[in-house]
Amino acid sequence: MMLLLSPAELDRLRVVLVRPRNPLNIGAAARAMSNFGFVHLRVVNAYEVAFREARSAMRAASLLKRAQQFSTIAEAVADCSLIVGTAGRDSEAPGPVRRLEQGARLIRAQLANGPVALLFGSEKTGLSNEELSYCHWTMRIPTREEHVSMNLGQAVAVCLYELIRSGRAEPVRSAATCARAAEVDRLTEVLLDALRTSGYVKARTAASTEQKVRRLVRRLKLTPADAELLTGMLRQVCWKLHSAD
Amino acid sequence: MMLLLSPAELDRLRVVLVRPRNPLNIGAAARAMSNFGFVHLRVVNAYEVAFREARSAMRAASLLKRAQQFSTIAEAVADCSLIVGTAGRDSEAPGPVRRLEQGARLIRAQLANGPVALLFGSEKTGLSNEELSYCHWTMRIPTREEHVSMNLGQAVAVCLYELIRSGRAEPVRSAATCARAAEVDRLTEVLLDALRTSGYVKARTAASTEQKVRRLVRRLKLTPADAELLTGMLRQVCWKLHSAD
Repeated sequence: MMLLLSPAELDRLRVVLVRPRNPLNIGAAARAMSNFGFVHLRVVNAYEVAFREARSAMRAASLLKRAQQFSTIAEAVADCSLIVGTAGRDSEAPGPVRRLEQGARLIRAQLANGPVALLFGSEKTGLSNEELSYCHWTMRIPTREEHVSMNLGQAVAVCLYELIRSGRAEPVRSAATCARAAEVDRLTEVLLDALRTSGYVKARTAASTEQKVRRLVRRLKLTPADAELLTGMLRQVCWKLHSAD
Repeated sequence: MMLLLSPAELDRLRVVLVRPRNPLNIGAAARAMSNFGFVHLRVVNAYEVAFREARSAMRAASLLKRAQQFSTIAEAVADCSLIVGTAGRDSEAPGPVRRLEQGARLIRAQLANGPVALLFGSEKTGLSNEELSYCHWTMRIPTREEHVSMNLGQAVAVCLYELIRSGRAEPVRSAATCARAAEVDRLTEVLLDALRTSGYVKARTAASTEQKVRRLVRRLKLTPADAELLTGMLRQVCWKLHSAD
């Protein structure tokens, strides 16, 4: 896998969950972090029971064990040079509201220099205006106007994916080698044999049917292996057809 | 919000959950679909209780109510011309395994022409090789090698996000109209009939041979006309084989 962020850069992101209520969401956030290579989870004013339950989650257990608890956002982001909030609806957020695609680019650039905090609000209300006031700007996942609000665990997954997502299109695998004409001809002959023996080819239209078959086989653009496989199959069919004659 | 996919294109995606076990995940998949504007949810062999419980989920309730249940993958994807599986680890998947960024581009291009099915496997095992044999190719979310497996609801969210994500999409060669799964299935069945009758399929290895045949037929990437042509040819061959019995 080609990494867009270096290990040092991955290590500089702090995922901050503010007032999470549901242990499953805390666990899901941790799992997505582990999937994409981020390590620092911080929770602010987590509902105590939720946090304890989440810690017992099987997946990403070590990441959860190292998660840090804070009672204020100020403390949770104290070591960061950029603080970004996530918001569904347009809120009275300070600074610009950026679409995720663009926001992620700016975060990546900043991660080269120093720690960045990415804040997610509680399941019900998101980040409050008070909480957003700690952020330099906010980022919005491009959901539909009619259903803006995402599940917390899914929102974390989508944001982290965008951060590690590769912008450069992967080189498309070069077209598979095609079967050579001789191999294609061999397949054509055995298919024609089956069609003649079974009565598909009529004497009156034999020439045009043969052309049709030849063109069809060429359109298949078979690899050498597939041409051989199909030829073997049809040979068996022909053998059976002839043995019944 | 600038839309990358038109409403008609959004309407052509079928999100197919195969053997989902956890109602929360079915609900989470539906919610992500609603967030990003997709509407057609299909479940194959859902654990019955899970499906019933998921239907009572508060979010995306109407989408869940319209979700369709199927007992086989073949039925669930019958109207689709492109079937894409999602896979964590490298499996014996047919066709190429593409990174999500690249796969999503190809899916978007195909959505301009016809319905596309995007398959997600069960929480524990993902898609089996048998299930993957229905897919033209597979797509992989670029997670870390050390923690490949994503939560189902999060995987759905990330894949759908990538589909609607903005970014100058490079012009993708418009995919030729492909035969629908039902047409490909018909061809597969008649080819299998010929191979069984002629003795190519051995009882001991019948299951793996059938998978091999299914994958082969999908690799051919037939147009609807060619699928019909080849099916007609093989029908005649089968007729002759049976009449000789």
